[in-house]
Amino acid sequence: MTRGGGRPDEDGLIARFFRPLATAPGAAQLLDDAATYQPPEGHELVLTTDALVAGVHFFPNDPPDAIARKALRVNLSDLAAKGARPVGYLLSIALTEDWSPDWLESFADGLASDQEEFGVALFGGDTVRTPGPLWISVTAFGLAPEGQVPRRDRAVPGQKIYVTGTIGDSALGLKIRMDESLRTRWQLSDREAEHLLDRYLLPEPRTRAAGLMNDFASASMDISDGLAGDLGRMCSASDVGAVLDADRLPLSAAAAKAVRSDPSALNTVLTGGDDYEILVTIDADAAEVFEAAALDQGVRVTAVGTIMPSFSGHVRVERRGQPLVLDRLAFRHF
Amino acid sequence: MTRGGGRPDEDGLIARFFRPLATAPGAAQLLDDAATYQPPEGHELVLTTDALVAGVHFFPNDPPDAIARKALRVNLSDLAAKGARPVGYLLSIALTEDWSPDWLESFADGLASDQEEFGVALFGGDTVRTPGPLWISVTAFGLAPEGQVPRRDRAVPGQKIYVTGTIGDSALGLKIRMDESLRTRWQLSDREAEHLLDRYLLPEPRTRAAGLMNDFASASMDISDGLAGDLGRMCSASDVGAVLDADRLPLSAAAAKAVRSDPSALNTVLTGGDDYEILVTIDADAAEVFEAAALDQGVRVTAVGTIMPSFSGHVRVERRGQPLVLDRLAFRHF
Repeated sequence: MTRGGGRPDEDGLIARFFRPLATAPGAAQLLDDAATYQPPEGHELVLTTDALVAGVHFFPNDPPDAIARKALRVNLSDLAAKGARPVGYLLSIALTEDWSPDWLESFADGLASDQEEFGVALFGGDTVRTPGPLWISVTAFGLAPEGQVPRRDRAVPGQKIYVTGTIGDSALGLKIRMDESLRTRWQLSDREAEHLLDRYLLPEPRTRAAGLMNDFASASMDISDGLAGDLGRMCSASDVGAVLDADRLPLSAAAAKAVRSDPSALNTVLTGGDDYEILVTIDADAAEVFEAAALDQGVRVTAVGTIMPSFSGHVRVERRGQPLVLDRLAFRHF
Repeated sequence: MTRGGGRPDEDGLIARFFRPLATAPGAAQLLDDAATYQPPEGHELVLTTDALVAGVHFFPNDPPDAIARKALRVNLSDLAAKGARPVGYLLSIALTEDWSPDWLESFADGLASDQEEFGVALFGGDTVRTPGPLWISVTAFGLAPEGQVPRRDRAVPGQKIYVTGTIGDSALGLKIRMDESLRTRWQLSDREAEHLLDRYLLPEPRTRAAGLMNDFASASMDISDGLAGDLGRMCSASDVGAVLDADRLPLSAAAAKAVRSDPSALNTVLTGGDDYEILVTIDADAAEVFEAAALDQGVRVTAVGTIMPSFSGHVRVERRGQPLVLDRLAFRHF
């Protein structure tokens, strides 16, 4: 089962690292060509896929467990935005020539830990070799109550715009990762800097908010390419505009400090990628009940703007009542 | 929407090349974070994923439409072996810096053509950049009647072993692709050589055989890593052995000629990869009805051996009544 350096062959590798993750009966312990799954009645299956490439979406020297969790979590974030509870995922991974069992063990540990945290299981996979950088592609699926999957094209003028969690942490974390001197420039404590770095390394999909999306969302989507740009996409899809109030953005203590010390950081907060929060529009007369329900669920939500009947796709960002011009609208991974 | 050289950005690229493929209502024209799908009652969802890397699973200069179709078809082959009719797929593709709209247009044309042929639709995707070789990861899903998904661990001593189609063409085609002189050595006409090359370039998933699998299969799997090795895996999973009769292998005219001219080609036929035929075991007393049903469906099936109560996972290959020793059991893509 092994060849050279204690590294198992593909069957051995799957048995050792991935079989323990295939806990659903339909996954057949990854011993078969395909998995089976039967959604319960009254539910829709929600499907999404996202891929990460080393050097593009993460740093090759990131901890392997964090890489694995990020690959899974960016998909869980899409499911949460669509009001779906995650069920399972399929994983393709391309390993480079110098892969090591230790690396893969840590990678699998990361998946195991997130499987427990989010209640999902591995349903299948493919392990291949690549002469290029390591990459991972995950397809995740989940369940939403029938007819209660919010779309991104249902934003209506007058609706309030909410975001979950805090905005900009991850993009600021990436900036610090690229330029350590920003820690000083932004006057961050070690703990604050770590907070931002961690948010880049490990997204926090808002799975707990899925039920809120079923019950309250008019339009919703996950924020992966920056709030301003993703709101623009939502507005384009819905043929509406929006006003975004930069003074009301939910910022972590660390992000708030960065923005105070360096006004250009606000641009990063608004247009940086990798937030993995949910952007959602709510009818104005349901806003109070929505906020109360979110509080009950332990999900932080903040109103950050209003959908407008203006030019389709146009987002006006305001700060202290004045329009704010951004360097660019969105961060693009592509 | 474009930047340099007439190449669209990610949104433009998706709109131009992939949106026309997202014909299912649940795919939301790829304008959303996730797709929805509701399987009809009485059916199980069957899910599989397979990835291809340029230079590993295909030649970088293969026609883009053939690369696309291969990426989809290797997944459809898994579904067919599990008795599932394909419904949809999600696609991750990593493009290299020098990607061209022409390449991607041909790639999308290949998908469109296979979507029509196999009745599937694109349900979602992710387009990323890679500094390494181009790769494609497809997750496909389909439907099988509830409780009628054959597994690979159900082979029972006394059952007859069948394969669909012909065996070895693709592996011989790859040999020719690597060494043109084999055309002469194997005394192949141009047409025969083309047949083998085509089988390597473009698998023929046995989607039409899915119903036969529901009705007759005890154990089944698709043959992707060579008949001898995959039969060994089926036997291991089922805790049985097998006798494989090399004289009864269904060979195309081209493969038969290669084996006659060069006995070592038989090794390639038995252990080469990329057949994408179905390997299935059938109760001996159902064999006649199975063959008749296959004939009705226009699916070629050939009995090639028998499941034995011998050592788990052991496959004895016989030729002219004598055991045949293979160089290696299986071709591994990994």
